Amino acid sequence: MASSPARRGQMHLGAFFHPTGNHVASWLHPGAQPDAGLNIDHYIEITRIAERGRFDMIFLADAVATRDGNLDALKRWPQYMAYFEPTTLLAALAVATQHIGLVCTATTSYNEPYNIARRFASLDMISKGRIGWNVVTSANLTEAYNFGREAHFEHGERYDRALEFTEVVQGLWDSWDDDAFLIDRASATYFDPTKLHYLHHKGEHFSVRGPLNVARSPQGQPVLFQAGSSEAGKEAAARFAEGVFTGQYTLEGAQGFYRDLKGRMAKYGRTPDQLLILPGLNAIPGRTEAEAKEKHAALQALIHPDVGLELLSNALGGFDLRPYDLDAKLPEAAYAMTTNGSTTALRNVLRWAREEELTIRQLYQRFAGARGQRTLVGSAVQIADEMEQWFLNHGSDGFLIQPSHLPEGLEDFVELVVPILQERGLLRRDYEGTTLREHLGLARPVSRHAARPEAAE
Amino acid sequence: MASSPARRGQMHLGAFFHPTGNHVASWLHPGAQPDAGLNIDHYIEITRIAERGRFDMIFLADAVATRDGNLDALKRWPQYMAYFEPTTLLAALAVATQHIGLVCTATTSYNEPYNIARRFASLDMISKGRIGWNVVTSANLTEAYNFGREAHFEHGERYDRALEFTEVVQGLWDSWDDDAFLIDRASATYFDPTKLHYLHHKGEHFSVRGPLNVARSPQGQPVLFQAGSSEAGKEAAARFAEGVFTGQYTLEGAQGFYRDLKGRMAKYGRTPDQLLILPGLNAIPGRTEAEAKEKHAALQALIHPDVGLELLSNALGGFDLRPYDLDAKLPEAAYAMTTNGSTTALRNVLRWAREEELTIRQLYQRFAGARGQRTLVGSAVQIADEMEQWFLNHGSDGFLIQPSHLPEGLEDFVELVVPILQERGLLRRDYEGTTLREHLGLARPVSRHAARPEAAE
Repeated sequence: MASSPARRGQMHLGAFFHPTGNHVASWLHPGAQPDAGLNIDHYIEITRIAERGRFDMIFLADAVATRDGNLDALKRWPQYMAYFEPTTLLAALAVATQHIGLVCTATTSYNEPYNIARRFASLDMISKGRIGWNVVTSANLTEAYNFGREAHFEHGERYDRALEFTEVVQGLWDSWDDDAFLIDRASATYFDPTKLHYLHHKGEHFSVRGPLNVARSPQGQPVLFQAGSSEAGKEAAARFAEGVFTGQYTLEGAQGFYRDLKGRMAKYGRTPDQLLILPGLNAIPGRTEAEAKEKHAALQALIHPDVGLELLSNALGGFDLRPYDLDAKLPEAAYAMTTNGSTTALRNVLRWAREEELTIRQLYQRFAGARGQRTLVGSAVQIADEMEQWFLNHGSDGFLIQPSHLPEGLEDFVELVVPILQERGLLRRDYEGTTLREHLGLARPVSRHAARPEAAE
Repeated sequence: MASSPARRGQMHLGAFFHPTGNHVASWLHPGAQPDAGLNIDHYIEITRIAERGRFDMIFLADAVATRDGNLDALKRWPQYMAYFEPTTLLAALAVATQHIGLVCTATTSYNEPYNIARRFASLDMISKGRIGWNVVTSANLTEAYNFGREAHFEHGERYDRALEFTEVVQGLWDSWDDDAFLIDRASATYFDPTKLHYLHHKGEHFSVRGPLNVARSPQGQPVLFQAGSSEAGKEAAARFAEGVFTGQYTLEGAQGFYRDLKGRMAKYGRTPDQLLILPGLNAIPGRTEAEAKEKHAALQALIHPDVGLELLSNALGGFDLRPYDLDAKLPEAAYAMTTNGSTTALRNVLRWAREEELTIRQLYQRFAGARGQRTLVGSAVQIADEMEQWFLNHGSDGFLIQPSHLPEGLEDFVELVVPILQERGLLRRDYEGTTLREHLGLARPVSRHAARPEAAE
C-alpha cells in the first residue's frame, strides 16, 4: 500500500477532549478552562468549536476509577480524577450540536453487553446517527477494585471477553429490522413481529437472550473504534473496528502499522476501506514556528517536577523513581519492568532512555507533556504539510487531534490549521452527510437478518 | 397524622412519561406522538410542557429487556418494547430545559453500584442539580435472561442487594467533599487530598474501593426515589428514599400508607419531612365532566381485546386466559396464582374479581386502560378538588401525574388543572429554586465526611 500512488480524497479528523486538554499542565495555562470536569457549558463550547472546524467527531476517553498514585502529584495533575461520565456527556452534547460525530470509550471488562448495546443505541437515536463506541478492555488495577475484584483480568482474557462482548453488542443492535416499526393505526399494528429477532447468545463469558429494547439506530449500528496496539489489539481491530486510534511517531512506522492492520482484515472478510486509521497528533500550531515554540515552552514550563516523576513511574509499570537522582540515567532495574497497562508507553520510554541516554529529568520532560504521544510544534503550514504527507502517503486516514489545552489549543487549530487543510481540499468545508458514518465514508451496515429473511423466533 | 389539622404549603407534581402515554391504547389516539420511543424531539417537547406547567419533575420508568409475551398482543401494545435508555435521555433533556427535575429508574439487580453512582452524579452535574434516581430491584424474568441468569433473584435477595447497592452508591457520592476542588493555579493545587475519601466497602454483594471519579454533585447527592409497596419495599423506602411513588385508590388507603411509611422512618433516624409520598394519578381532565368522559371513552374504545387479555394475564402471574369465555367470571384456578412481579396488581385484580364479581372482559376493561392505577375522569375543578383533598388531609405530598397520551393528555392537564391549583396556592407559579431538592423542599445532604473531619486515606 505504501507503494500505491498518492491518494485523493479528504482526511478525517477527531478532536480528543482530555479534561482541560492533553498537556499534563494544561489546567495551569490561562487559555484553559480549569474546571472542565465540573463544567458542562465548557464541553458544549469546545464541541461547538470542533463542529465549526468541521471535525468528523469528538472523542472522550474513560476509566471506571480515579487515577491512583502519589497524592502530591495527583493534586497537581488532576486529569481523569473527577469528570463527566462519557455516555451521559455525549447525550448532552448531542442536543447542543447538530453535525459533529460523538465518540466515547466504554470498557468491556466492567460492563454488561446488554447495558452497553442499549446506551450506545439510545445515544445514536438521541444524536440522530452521530455516535461511536471506542471498545477498551481497561488496563488499570484501580478499576478492578471498584468492581469486586482484587486483580484485573489478564491481557488475553480481557481480549477474549472483549471480542465476545462486542459480538453480543453487535448482535443486539440488529434486534429490530430497520423497517420493523409500521406504526399503523388503521390495523392497530405498531411493529411487525417477524422483524424482531432474539439473540439467544450463549458463550464463554456471556449469555444474553435479547432482543434489545431500542430500535435499530439511525446508523444501523454505532461506529466501532479501538485503540490497542498490541497483537491482540490489532487482531481485535482487524476483526471489528471501523476506526482505530494509535500512537505513531514516524511516517515509516505509521505506514507499517497501516499496512499491517489493514492487511489483517481480509481473513475476517473485510476490505481495507472498512477501517480508518487515525494516529494521535498533539498539534501546537502558531502563526509562525517561533510563536508555536513559545506556546509549547509556556506549557512545558508549567510542568511540576512531582508530576513528571509520577508520570514516568506510571509508564514504567509503577517503578518508583523518587529515590533516584533526577540528573542520573534511568536505573538498570527499571528496564526489567513489565506492565499490565500500556505496553507501548513502556516500550517507548525504555527505548528513549537507552538509545538517547536521557537522564530521568530529561526523560520525564520528554514524556510528561503529552505522555510520549507525537507532538508537532510548528507553524500552521508546517503542521498542515506534515498531516498532508502522512495522509497522502498512506500513513493514516486522518488524525486524532489532541489539543494541548482547551478551549484555546482547539481554537488555535481551527483558526490556523483547518483553513489550510480546506484550501488544499484535504478537509470538508461543510458537512455533507448527517451521520458519523457519512462523515467517515463508512457504509451503513446491513442487518444480519436482512440478508436472510426468517420468521420471528 | 390523619388527625393533624389540614396542612399548608404546596403540593409536588411529577409527570410520568410512559412512551406515547399511560393509557394502553395511547399510541392509537390522534393526540399522541406515536413514534415516541424513536423521537427525541418529542421528549424534549413534553418535558418543556411539564416545565411550563411548573412540575417538580418528570419521571421515566425502565426495564433492561423488552416485554415478553404474546406477540399478537405486544405488536398492538408496544410500550417499553423499544425506547430511549433513560440515563442518556435525561442528559439530553437536561440540556433542553432549565428548571424541571429529571428522574429515572435504574435497577440494582443488573448494574454495578460504581457505574450507577457515576452516571447519576454525572447527570446531576450536567443538569446543574436536577436529577433523581428511582431505585428498583427489577421484577421480570426477561431481564435475568439478558444478564446470564436463568432465574431472577428472589424478592428478599433482590432487596438485600438493593439496600447494599444503595449504601455503596451513597458512599461513593460523598467521595469528594464539596470544597475539595481548590483549582488554585498559584500553588499548582487542583484539589485538597484530605478532602478525597476512599470507600473501602466490603459487603455481602459488593466490594468497592472508590473513590468515585465524579465530583460531589450540585445537590450533594441526587434525590433517591423508590416505588415498591411490599413490606420489604416500604422498609427500604423508610430507610433511604426521599420520594416514593405508590398506587393508592382511596383517601383512607392513601392516609394509611402515608402514616405507615412515614412512621417507619424514625427507627432509621429520619424525620417524616425527609420523604415525600406521591401516589400515581391518571388524570383525564376536561373543561366539563362530560368532555372528560368523552375523552376517556375515546381512549377506552381503542383498547384491542388481544391487549386486554394479555395485560390481565400478566397481572395474574402469567395465567393464560385465552381458553376461557370472556363473559364468564375469572376461573377459580386464577386465584391461586402468585407472582415474582407486582404483588399489588395481582392483589387488586383478584379483589375486584371476587368483590365485584366481574367477568374476564369487565376485569380487563377495568384493568387495561391504566393497568389498575387510580384514574380520575372529570372536570378540571373536580380533579383539582380531589387532589387538594388528598393533599390537605395527609393522603399525599403531591402526585405523580400519568398523562393518558402524550403530548395531548399532558397539555390538557397543564392548561386546565394547573391554573386552578396555582389559583388555590397549591402549586408554584414560578420555580423558586434551581435544584430538584429545592423544588421538593428537601435539604441538601451533608457529606458523611463533613461531620467528622479526617485525613485522606
